Amino acid sequence: MRRPASTGVYTMQASLEFFKSALQKESTVNSTAAVHQWIAQRNAEIKVEVTPIPFYKLGQWYINEATGNIHHRSGKFFTIEGVSITADKGDGPKSWSQPIIHQPEIGYLGFLVKKIEGVYHFLVQAKIEPGNVNNVQLSPTIQATRSNYTRVHQGKSPAYLEYFRERRGTVLLDQLQSEQGARFFRKRNRNIIIEVHEDVPLYQDFRWVTLGQLKELLRLDNVVNMDTRTVISGIGYGSYSSEITDLLGVFAPSMMSDFHASLYQSYVNANNALHTMSGQLSWLTELKSAYELMVNLVPMNLVTDWLRDDYRIYHKEGKYFEVIAVDVTIGNREVSSWAQPIVKPCQEGIVAFVAKMINGVLHFLVQAKLEVGNLDIVELAPTVQCITGNYRKGLNEYDVPFLDYVLAAGKDQVMYDVMLSEEGGRFYRNQNRNMVILAGSDFPVQVPENYRWFTLQHLMQFMQYSNYLNIEARSILSVLSF
Amino acid sequence: MRRPASTGVYTMQASLEFFKSALQKESTVNSTAAVHQWIAQRNAEIKVEVTPIPFYKLGQWYINEATGNIHHRSGKFFTIEGVSITADKGDGPKSWSQPIIHQPEIGYLGFLVKKIEGVYHFLVQAKIEPGNVNNVQLSPTIQATRSNYTRVHQGKSPAYLEYFRERRGTVLLDQLQSEQGARFFRKRNRNIIIEVHEDVPLYQDFRWVTLGQLKELLRLDNVVNMDTRTVISGIGYGSYSSEITDLLGVFAPSMMSDFHASLYQSYVNANNALHTMSGQLSWLTELKSAYELMVNLVPMNLVTDWLRDDYRIYHKEGKYFEVIAVDVTIGNREVSSWAQPIVKPCQEGIVAFVAKMINGVLHFLVQAKLEVGNLDIVELAPTVQCITGNYRKGLNEYDVPFLDYVLAAGKDQVMYDVMLSEEGGRFYRNQNRNMVILAGSDFPVQVPENYRWFTLQHLMQFMQYSNYLNIEARSILSVLSF
Repeated sequence: MRRPASTGVYTMQASLEFFKSALQKESTVNSTAAVHQWIAQRNAEIKVEVTPIPFYKLGQWYINEATGNIHHRSGKFFTIEGVSITADKGDGPKSWSQPIIHQPEIGYLGFLVKKIEGVYHFLVQAKIEPGNVNNVQLSPTIQATRSNYTRVHQGKSPAYLEYFRERRGTVLLDQLQSEQGARFFRKRNRNIIIEVHEDVPLYQDFRWVTLGQLKELLRLDNVVNMDTRTVISGIGYGSYSSEITDLLGVFAPSMMSDFHASLYQSYVNANNALHTMSGQLSWLTELKSAYELMVNLVPMNLVTDWLRDDYRIYHKEGKYFEVIAVDVTIGNREVSSWAQPIVKPCQEGIVAFVAKMINGVLHFLVQAKLEVGNLDIVELAPTVQCITGNYRKGLNEYDVPFLDYVLAAGKDQVMYDVMLSEEGGRFYRNQNRNMVILAGSDFPVQVPENYRWFTLQHLMQFMQYSNYLNIEARSILSVLSF
Repeated sequence: MRRPASTGVYTMQASLEFFKSALQKESTVNSTAAVHQWIAQRNAEIKVEVTPIPFYKLGQWYINEATGNIHHRSGKFFTIEGVSITADKGDGPKSWSQPIIHQPEIGYLGFLVKKIEGVYHFLVQAKIEPGNVNNVQLSPTIQATRSNYTRVHQGKSPAYLEYFRERRGTVLLDQLQSEQGARFFRKRNRNIIIEVHEDVPLYQDFRWVTLGQLKELLRLDNVVNMDTRTVISGIGYGSYSSEITDLLGVFAPSMMSDFHASLYQSYVNANNALHTMSGQLSWLTELKSAYELMVNLVPMNLVTDWLRDDYRIYHKEGKYFEVIAVDVTIGNREVSSWAQPIVKPCQEGIVAFVAKMINGVLHFLVQAKLEVGNLDIVELAPTVQCITGNYRKGLNEYDVPFLDYVLAAGKDQVMYDVMLSEEGGRFYRNQNRNMVILAGSDFPVQVPENYRWFTLQHLMQFMQYSNYLNIEARSILSVLSF
């Protein structure tokens, strides 16, 4: 039965069902091992050839020599432009400029969810992207640009699009979330989860898995893609109440390891949080108010310190990233090929949350981070975020606060440590090390003014609204499991 | 005693204290009649002369003829620039351009609050602004631009600035809120309330009043200024709980009139709301995702359909507003004078909420409104918002949805009806009629897709985060009393 969209959001019940699904690390529908094997098999089968080419061979893409910007001849997809920023915190203006991806439209990143054998299962796709280090990764049911879903008569529409366009079922989550502020100009996607109440056809390359299975696969390097991570990071587990414990029945946090029980308590119980929500908001208001900021798109030709040759746009000191052109051929029987610009990082990055028990509740150390592509000045970022590389000052000496602590952490402090990829449609073999470090009593509660301790419940409150948590923070949160 | 800012936010207790203060329509500190008389007296005493002058006599301000933009010679204050917008909802792009005020800094709008005789009192200022229809209005304790508080050595700093800079007390509210999206380019202010725990010197032109007294004065035309309204609109009254009823003691909603009891219930009890919070968020996500939007600052000379002569920048059909230049002289003994550009509306506007009992709870009909200066596409606006005039199609026939209903409402349906001014530093004699209409069973629950029913609790949830409620919606909410 189709339900009207407007009444289709049931938060508390959905939170419980999501939590139940997160606890299910196995499923009789598809075993975790079988899913892993399926991806490995798809990776073995598929041929992906990605070859750097000069810009002038980009075919449908071209450089406008008047501006230096890179466009598609249709005017669609994205452009590579310049952006200039002047930031003044009262100590005088600081300016810089850089290339940036501009794509002023909001795409769908969506999961269909269905209760199978009493547990929410997510419909994942084994999806090939040219930039992926290992070709195939688990993506959401749909990754569709606005062009896909508003002008569907031109070209084949993505599988399951009609479920999202018509919202066939109950909308469980529906958020606008930001992409990388250091790479994209104010880009956001619509992160959506729809529970279907009808039978759904199962197309090739799609499988049903529980949230717990996704979390298990997230312990492996480069299996679950960024789009999946951002959607599932938005899933909350409600507030602690007698209704929840009643409904959960057999479940008790005592069944979990200490750390995972702490995680759960940090999600559902904020009573002993170090700060109130109003306090967190006030801190953010203070930091945002501190800046006088001017951010403008400018022609690439006006970006300083960046150079271009036939094959790449690059920083004069080899820092940050390059924009390159590639020729892509994908397929085994049916072959498709195209050329496109793509962003290639100059080195691997690291993103890490430091977590610590404070007042008996697990807190995460959040950084308010200014990035040029942010819509609203600063976003909540991980404790450490060095995706632009070049943070090394010297042997075991780093410019970035808390990086030393993260890299020197003992094995028993490392709760998560996994290599995860950025989106393979825009980024070429771009992976970051995602970590969660459990700090001991040696780690201070007192932190610099642009850092702040948050419980998971507070982070999930902010998550519901747009442009608060950045994509790097969300990527790490998606990894957390019980 | 000075408390550290980071721990200074006590939401639940503050909500209660605010509510108690809202119930106090009188105070022995300053009677409401005395406050009213004080403003009347100040208005009678003070001489304000505002004379239109040609742009070339603006002195410290000038028009850059290459761009047509208006600047201050210091590079400070604000600029008048052009803005162009292209919006595409999938039915083809629509473009327009207009003049806009650009001021890329965040100012303070702040109240000091002190418990006097057991009740929160707000420190109001009788403030003169050149654009005010009646010269003096009640403003917050402080209205300070960023220049005021970061470079205080240049010029006299505003009274009480140190309380806000050093946060001397407990921060009770601290939000970034937007200004008029049809007039300002992404302008926001920091709305802040600080409870002081020490004795505060009382300077000339300042008085202590309760929230209830402010609400009483808000029933009068043009007494309480926009800056006061936006700050007090952010005050929430918590969630309904046994703690609240216990703490309130004698108070019970039954002591209020039916309508005011309904208002209170709509603030504190969302159990029977028509939609869930996730549902409201999903609706907003859907609408924001519908647009492909390009908004750019452009030189005034590139704005189409607007003309300039020596005295004004105006729309070719006389619509919307004009930018004029004025010479201002204020004072009786001590006289100050200056010249500045100011925005003059072409006619009075109207902003109105339609409210309706649904499921036994009072709901407000909210409009998701696209305005060119919005940071995030659409904001939550009143049911009717015609601040740009020109909504009249013919006799008793209006283009604007629900305007007919509002204007035809019977006397017993009009809960609030008051003329209130826009900020007198930027706007010349700009007042809007602020109304709340209680709709009967003749008003449909089913509304167009860009309208939605909200309880006050849901609106206050959104209010905590930036760029959700627009300033016109907040102005009306500030008027609501118990």
